[in-house]
Amino acid sequence: MNPSLATSGSSENLNNGVSSKDVLEMSPSKTGHHDRIILTTYPNQSGIDPLPLHWAAASAKERGPILASRLTVCSNEQEIVNNLKKRNAIGAHGGSYSIYHALGICSGALPSNHRPDYANTEPPVQIGPHPQWSAVDENGCPLIVSLDAWGHLVQSAFQKELSDGYDLRPTIAVTKAHMRVPELAGGKLAVDGRTVLAADGELSVVKAAVEPIWYLPGLATRFGVDEARLRRVLFEETGGMYPELITRPDLKLFLPPIGGLTIYIFGPPEYLSDPSKELTVRVHDECNGSDVFGSDICTCRPYLIYGIQRCVETAQRGGVGLIVYFRKEGRALGEVTKFLVYNARKRQAGGDRASTYFLRTEVIAGVQDMRFQGLMPDVLHWLGIRKIDHFISMSNMKYEAIVKAGIPILNRVPIPDGMLPPDSQVEMEAKIASGYYTDGHVADANELDTIKGRPWEDLRH
Amino acid sequence: MNPSLATSGSSENLNNGVSSKDVLEMSPSKTGHHDRIILTTYPNQSGIDPLPLHWAAASAKERGPILASRLTVCSNEQEIVNNLKKRNAIGAHGGSYSIYHALGICSGALPSNHRPDYANTEPPVQIGPHPQWSAVDENGCPLIVSLDAWGHLVQSAFQKELSDGYDLRPTIAVTKAHMRVPELAGGKLAVDGRTVLAADGELSVVKAAVEPIWYLPGLATRFGVDEARLRRVLFEETGGMYPELITRPDLKLFLPPIGGLTIYIFGPPEYLSDPSKELTVRVHDECNGSDVFGSDICTCRPYLIYGIQRCVETAQRGGVGLIVYFRKEGRALGEVTKFLVYNARKRQAGGDRASTYFLRTEVIAGVQDMRFQGLMPDVLHWLGIRKIDHFISMSNMKYEAIVKAGIPILNRVPIPDGMLPPDSQVEMEAKIASGYYTDGHVADANELDTIKGRPWEDLRH
Repeated sequence: MNPSLATSGSSENLNNGVSSKDVLEMSPSKTGHHDRIILTTYPNQSGIDPLPLHWAAASAKERGPILASRLTVCSNEQEIVNNLKKRNAIGAHGGSYSIYHALGICSGALPSNHRPDYANTEPPVQIGPHPQWSAVDENGCPLIVSLDAWGHLVQSAFQKELSDGYDLRPTIAVTKAHMRVPELAGGKLAVDGRTVLAADGELSVVKAAVEPIWYLPGLATRFGVDEARLRRVLFEETGGMYPELITRPDLKLFLPPIGGLTIYIFGPPEYLSDPSKELTVRVHDECNGSDVFGSDICTCRPYLIYGIQRCVETAQRGGVGLIVYFRKEGRALGEVTKFLVYNARKRQAGGDRASTYFLRTEVIAGVQDMRFQGLMPDVLHWLGIRKIDHFISMSNMKYEAIVKAGIPILNRVPIPDGMLPPDSQVEMEAKIASGYYTDGHVADANELDTIKGRPWEDLRH
Repeated sequence: MNPSLATSGSSENLNNGVSSKDVLEMSPSKTGHHDRIILTTYPNQSGIDPLPLHWAAASAKERGPILASRLTVCSNEQEIVNNLKKRNAIGAHGGSYSIYHALGICSGALPSNHRPDYANTEPPVQIGPHPQWSAVDENGCPLIVSLDAWGHLVQSAFQKELSDGYDLRPTIAVTKAHMRVPELAGGKLAVDGRTVLAADGELSVVKAAVEPIWYLPGLATRFGVDEARLRRVLFEETGGMYPELITRPDLKLFLPPIGGLTIYIFGPPEYLSDPSKELTVRVHDECNGSDVFGSDICTCRPYLIYGIQRCVETAQRGGVGLIVYFRKEGRALGEVTKFLVYNARKRQAGGDRASTYFLRTEVIAGVQDMRFQGLMPDVLHWLGIRKIDHFISMSNMKYEAIVKAGIPILNRVPIPDGMLPPDSQVEMEAKIASGYYTDGHVADANELDTIKGRPWEDLRH
């Protein structure tokens, strides 16, 4: 064992009246958890016996269920099942929302032994199984390493395990919806009674929410590092989150507490995997300030709306459109870093210029972009996509990741000039000069220095 | 120490060629981290000596800096500072985005010893200090327990500590922006040249992003549980995230990996803390499907837009408006659970009805709502707010949390009927019957049973 764990002073009283002893000796009746606190587990520990799991197997049965729960559960046959011993995944379901789940139990609002009733929650349309779910690339790495391809079918594929007391959760939910985009109202789209239901821009859509599940050996291959290093860095850089990343090399799955993705399908979902049908795709990374609040410093919402418009038009021509929305705020640097960068851009000597656009992010965040598009194409494989006709994005990083994943892109579509917000030119020209796709002019270094953003004086308060 | 930690089988080889030994013996040169892996720490461990911290002290100096980093850093004087020993907070900066940070280092894109340059990142407007930052309630609990009141002033308040090699990070960023809301274009707002800059709905705004920092003793008081139970449940229900929640009762701060909040201020920010000025507030919880994609099953985006409109109008009358946007998707249950509930609502016998609206969430999630508004008023205290004239929300939970926090609300404003999307009536009537504020009719049980949502047959694909 690790000698650093032997230095505990945990039985002594500390400040504010709470001691490790108080925490360690808390009775199970108070929490519904195990009597003894298990800080981490080890593969050879008594009773530890994870459910078998064969990632990227051809069927759900061969793959096996994914179990992250630590709860002791009573089966339908009234047998006690200790999920902690059978777990085959590190982390918790719900990502970040597991923290709120904990607050719910703490506050007494939620019984810790609650078991979900999944009746009527199954997908209303069929997605898969597709050959991509069990395929591997030329390195032997599965095509899908960051989500559970069977995640929307847990309720049916693992019905027996659920009734046997295994606390399994769906990690994907598929539903149908109506939506209305104000920018597409006013007769901008022809009413067809199928995708466009009314002249006010009312659209019919199939959507799905997907929580991340990482297959660590595949993730390591995708990033070109060894698995041990991936586990170590994940542990260290998150401030010591999940010691099982270190102590349980036998557990290959990790449910990271990060936001997932949502897909919106316009037109028949079964066309997505049919290469004879025209397909339009936009892969969009969250930008709350623009997507919701219409900030004028970037092109995010206008490009998203343009993507939806092109998707709808493709469906109306007999094809299908797909929007993938990733929760990667501020290039996955988060909104605090993003706003710090905005300030530094506006205040720098010479003002906000396209020539220094990336530099300002880099001196603050250490990197220009943290989105790592290498995992992004997994969702396209999940949907069975084999080629993309129109890719509504100028990003070279997204383009290269998809093509590298074996999905050809026939046509790249830049945002029309007329849709650019007034202050977004600095970002746009800097990105084009760095390799973003354009069918127009690419600015040189001198020109980039003359492309300036709005000064703050323009912002009166 | 905990006997469960003594059962390590970590030096044996396991499947797929990765063993605990590989991970445990990884050299520091590969990662930039410590030579020995420290799975968790203990208060009396050799060298552990957290920076002093007095939460809710009257000045930044007395409060002390918040340090979560585990990095070894070289100070400006070329001295080596081991942040791991001096840390006074559990967790990592950036919340969920610490996971992407780890991928950045893994992939080689980001040097692990990068230190941010915060030049020019300071807030462009002054927020605080306010008396609320160091005030306590009648139970002796600080008014602010879920964010760092000095989080936007780290760069200036702790300049010396930063140059001494302490790896501190701002947890709040304040900036200025322009935004444009399509629903408010077309002359809906009068151009005033200050808040409304153009007839196309262009608005001038001050905004801030806030990451959560939890003061655990205060959080426990707020939820009415003891701190040891709070720590235990947080640890267990997140699948064993952060053993230091258990082993470090001396560390009172936790940076949870959850989404934070963003505030938007319309009109002069200094008016927020001036009770002589009219103040309009909407507290909005994220709903991506409506806020971005305009789903018609709920009222989220229309209510948000109405809130912005009322905020702007208040600023134009010489007051100030405030929108607070919390990242609590799907009532903090996440989007997968939300979509599962949509399916169960649409498919249940009798169709989607107001009478069974809450029940369907509860059988799946175990609880109707996981947002726990008890921490929400902290941001209002941070802004120095002493009363709210117009509260643009019907939520009784939000209303009660704010009033309980000592901030009177003079006027509650429901969403105008004309803004309700077609399929949102089921939600709206169910909420009103459960206690949401209305100035109109409250449906009884029989009526609730007749208020039905759109069937799925309406959704053609």
